[in-house]
Amino acid sequence: MELTVTQENFARALSAVSRVASNKTGLPILSNILLRTDNNRLLVAATNLEIATTQYIGAKITKPGALTIPARLISEFVNNLPKDTIKLQVINNNLHISSGKFTSIINGVIADEFPELPTINEASSISYTIHIDDFKQAVNQTIITASSDTTRPVLTGVYWHSHEGQLYLSATDGYRLSERRLVETKSDVSAIIPVQTLQEALRTIVEDSDTVDILFDETQVRFRINDAEIISRLVDGNFPDYRQLIPAKSDINVTVNKQEFIRVTKIAGLFARESGGSVTVTVDADNKSVSLHSIASEYGENTSELSAEVTGSGQVTLNSRYLTEALSVIEGDTIEFSFTGKLSPCILKSVVKDVDYYHVIMPLKS
Amino acid sequence: MELTVTQENFARALSAVSRVASNKTGLPILSNILLRTDNNRLLVAATNLEIATTQYIGAKITKPGALTIPARLISEFVNNLPKDTIKLQVINNNLHISSGKFTSIINGVIADEFPELPTINEASSISYTIHIDDFKQAVNQTIITASSDTTRPVLTGVYWHSHEGQLYLSATDGYRLSERRLVETKSDVSAIIPVQTLQEALRTIVEDSDTVDILFDETQVRFRINDAEIISRLVDGNFPDYRQLIPAKSDINVTVNKQEFIRVTKIAGLFARESGGSVTVTVDADNKSVSLHSIASEYGENTSELSAEVTGSGQVTLNSRYLTEALSVIEGDTIEFSFTGKLSPCILKSVVKDVDYYHVIMPLKS
Repeated sequence: MELTVTQENFARALSAVSRVASNKTGLPILSNILLRTDNNRLLVAATNLEIATTQYIGAKITKPGALTIPARLISEFVNNLPKDTIKLQVINNNLHISSGKFTSIINGVIADEFPELPTINEASSISYTIHIDDFKQAVNQTIITASSDTTRPVLTGVYWHSHEGQLYLSATDGYRLSERRLVETKSDVSAIIPVQTLQEALRTIVEDSDTVDILFDETQVRFRINDAEIISRLVDGNFPDYRQLIPAKSDINVTVNKQEFIRVTKIAGLFARESGGSVTVTVDADNKSVSLHSIASEYGENTSELSAEVTGSGQVTLNSRYLTEALSVIEGDTIEFSFTGKLSPCILKSVVKDVDYYHVIMPLKS
Repeated sequence: MELTVTQENFARALSAVSRVASNKTGLPILSNILLRTDNNRLLVAATNLEIATTQYIGAKITKPGALTIPARLISEFVNNLPKDTIKLQVINNNLHISSGKFTSIINGVIADEFPELPTINEASSISYTIHIDDFKQAVNQTIITASSDTTRPVLTGVYWHSHEGQLYLSATDGYRLSERRLVETKSDVSAIIPVQTLQEALRTIVEDSDTVDILFDETQVRFRINDAEIISRLVDGNFPDYRQLIPAKSDINVTVNKQEFIRVTKIAGLFARESGGSVTVTVDADNKSVSLHSIASEYGENTSELSAEVTGSGQVTLNSRYLTEALSVIEGDTIEFSFTGKLSPCILKSVVKDVDYYHVIMPLKS
């Protein structure tokens, strides 16, 4: 293999793929990245056997070939080189890298030892092209409610599924739930994408990314963003039928300024550390007010009020961290907060028309 | 105690002093801060028994008094309040804090239980007023060579001392050494200031800080920056007589662009991780070049060259991290690098006239 690339393209591709390369698996080859010529491009790839990530960059190829080399070293080295042309040459399974007055030799391992990169059968697959901003928002709005408890794998991903002609994303950890409508769909989709895969897709977005192409087959999903590609396995299993758990209407409804609600929740949370984040929300229709109360038995207590439009009166106790996280991903300046009683789920959503997103938090027993 | 303060002043004072408050000492009262009225000001103070830090803020005092309260909770609470007036009132040793729609009660401990704040005998002391930029630079240039090994306490501080009518700062960890001339002095000074105290003084600097007043007595030092005050004990013991160890002249002298040297050192360091940072510098008078070579036995090797003005030829092996850190604190675009042989100390300094700073690195055995 012998070729030249620009420092900027090579550095960008290396930092993107080297996040996936790691030796946590115990398989040393997985801490390497694969370099392989592909017509007039250089393929730069890494895999952890769950996720494979590939970047293509323009290259002037003199001699085709392939090699794998340690991800971290090559990535940091190229990242520190000046903006210039870099020459790569494989001699005796070692990569000779030169750029201006810098020359390095990095010991490689032959490409045959690298796991085969997964492929998707495009014929039997379902595909979507999503605007990058919608994709970013939808993923950020749902991954926060996914579970980190690996004993229930189906809850550790985001459930992409069709329902009444629409594609929805949903995730729940048993304490809270989120649902986001993304686009119309004519296909039947039911796929649980691991959170790590979605995070990797988010990180792959660059400034000039416009859309993301998403393609599902039976067991895998592929994301294409600019010249980058991520292929990941899906989580096996059935996502719980959550729709039946969401109350169609609530007796108590509050409309409130989001920024004020965030501030009040954050302050209440400071006093709720000893009590596992427990904050009591009191809604008073007569005073048109909402107040949050929290007690730090050893340190003191706090009450914060905020003015609101209110229907109904009542009280519910919630985890302040869940409330803060929910508020951080709901769009718009004004939000709606609804519940029926001490034990019923609380629903949070934006008051903008055509609401595509809602967030549910289960109350704490108080 | 009953008074009002502005959120901005109170929040700033609390974040500054709460860094020093901690319960690492095992004495619970030290994780509290002291609030005490002082004429028309509120004193906000914390101590860890080594360092005491005090901030004075303007206050409208209705009833004088004092109380101690948990540093972290009050600091985070006030920090999250909106910009407004805050009312503080002590009732039954508890602090009632109210601001707009926010009301909190924080449980306090009477001020009598708080350690007495240290004072300095100003009559028998030596004082300096230093421009804030000089102070910042001098401290940053020296603390990096102080030791973190607490078995030799004298090396864990920066040695402030007079020599031939000048005040110098110096620090060494046995592997490297730095010396910075600060101001003229007519007094005899010999004081080792703990690194933590100097870091605390740096953090106390705010945007409009202009000068720092420094005052030494026999066992303590005091820094005054705007309305803040830090008093710290000095390190007990004698600093080594380092001046005799610095070679007056070297046979090999290199003048080189600092930014290029930083890049080359950083890249060489990537390949030197397995060898404890060991990088070999080769100076060649004939080629007017300097090259750095490093070997990662398992991963590969690197050679980087840079053009330089050179007198003499030779080779020396250094720790690349020490070299990078030295280059990061030396002023100017061009630096001078001198040594005599494989075992002699390397001296780094700026080539600007009136050099106030030099940095010495001991070579590694190669």
